[in-house]
Amino acid sequence: MEKAQLLYEGKAKRLYKTDEQGILWVEYKDSATAFNGEKKEEISGKGRLNNQITSLLFEKLKANGIASHFVKQLSDSEQLVREVSIVPIEVVVRNIVAGSMAKRLGLEEGKEIEKPVVEFYLKDDELGDPLITDDHVAMLELATEQEVTVLKDKARKINEVLIGFFQEIGVDLVDFKIEFGRDENGEILLADEISPDTCRLWDKETKQKLDKDVFRRNLGNLTDAYELILSRLGGQN
Amino acid sequence: MEKAQLLYEGKAKRLYKTDEQGILWVEYKDSATAFNGEKKEEISGKGRLNNQITSLLFEKLKANGIASHFVKQLSDSEQLVREVSIVPIEVVVRNIVAGSMAKRLGLEEGKEIEKPVVEFYLKDDELGDPLITDDHVAMLELATEQEVTVLKDKARKINEVLIGFFQEIGVDLVDFKIEFGRDENGEILLADEISPDTCRLWDKETKQKLDKDVFRRNLGNLTDAYELILSRLGGQN
Repeated sequence: MEKAQLLYEGKAKRLYKTDEQGILWVEYKDSATAFNGEKKEEISGKGRLNNQITSLLFEKLKANGIASHFVKQLSDSEQLVREVSIVPIEVVVRNIVAGSMAKRLGLEEGKEIEKPVVEFYLKDDELGDPLITDDHVAMLELATEQEVTVLKDKARKINEVLIGFFQEIGVDLVDFKIEFGRDENGEILLADEISPDTCRLWDKETKQKLDKDVFRRNLGNLTDAYELILSRLGGQN
Repeated sequence: MEKAQLLYEGKAKRLYKTDEQGILWVEYKDSATAFNGEKKEEISGKGRLNNQITSLLFEKLKANGIASHFVKQLSDSEQLVREVSIVPIEVVVRNIVAGSMAKRLGLEEGKEIEKPVVEFYLKDDELGDPLITDDHVAMLELATEQEVTVLKDKARKINEVLIGFFQEIGVDLVDFKIEFGRDENGEILLADEISPDTCRLWDKETKQKLDKDVFRRNLGNLTDAYELILSRLGGQN
């Protein structure tokens, strides 16, 4: 497999074509950004950690019947994925109140949510990724009604499985953001990444934050927290 | 019927008890407020116009099979209503893109929406009435799943009927906000008001704004616009 031209560079990853049709080469970057790009820093090791954690979680999800675009890990900070057309919706699942939801709805961080909340945000940096409802999805033609059902069902299923993984390693899965893509047959496939950049992960005992909030809120060394997640998940440091 | 003690004073209305159990006396005020109370003015005649328009529209809706809390108009600026327990959700129905939706989703004002959009906002001035989804309604226990369906169905039905009324008088119903309450049997009933304070109304030909945007955006004389709506609807000025 050969890496070909750069297809897209985002805040955290670079996507390249390969010499195989429908397969992309992903390079995880060391950039950390928050608050819609307002806070920015280079953090050595972050790309490697997110690539390793995402690869590991996508493998585990696959073993639990949840398909994703993930093909295989190539190196510390690189992986191969299937090319999909990203649905422009950020799907957020929340098990415990935190972050923007606490602020918007005037709730205390840490409150457990009885039935997990699934939220859609329009993937649009310029607009600040606004919260949208099913009616907005229909109006903006972001996904069909049937696809909306699939997105929500998959998000809830992924949540259940991830809660189990993190439970085993003494971590609360507070919330996470996922993205989906359509493959060449129009099937909805989990895509993007699942890492401490896209999840809130709290140590069950100490409630220590082991995720990007360490960076957002200046709570200490980011890579120490990510290393802890990787090693507890059984990955190589 | 006797007016008894003041029960509640809001931005636009005062609610009093009466000597009849379950019946409230509403006084429409001349206060105009916008941007969550940041802009404020007394506008003589506004209370009278909103009371008259609301009374007229609730009568018309009733004749079209849509029950509300409205009992009868008492005077220019007063009406009797049934006492209900207000569901703390502002229900917004949109037929044409305008206002906050245009801004949040980066859309142009005036674009027609193929299938009307129904939105829920948490009725909470301190939080700035944030947009909420069905999952938030469940989490915050604002309404049952069955009630959410009733709220949406009623909102769409009310929209269809109102579009018809305004169509006849050469006015586009751009969007509107309604509130619902539960009566003593737990039945969901249309409540609050329907007036140019709570609707966006544009003249079909000239696109002139005949609603509270005249006040929000300093577009001229508010009561002239409201008088026009009232007289076109066949009301007494």
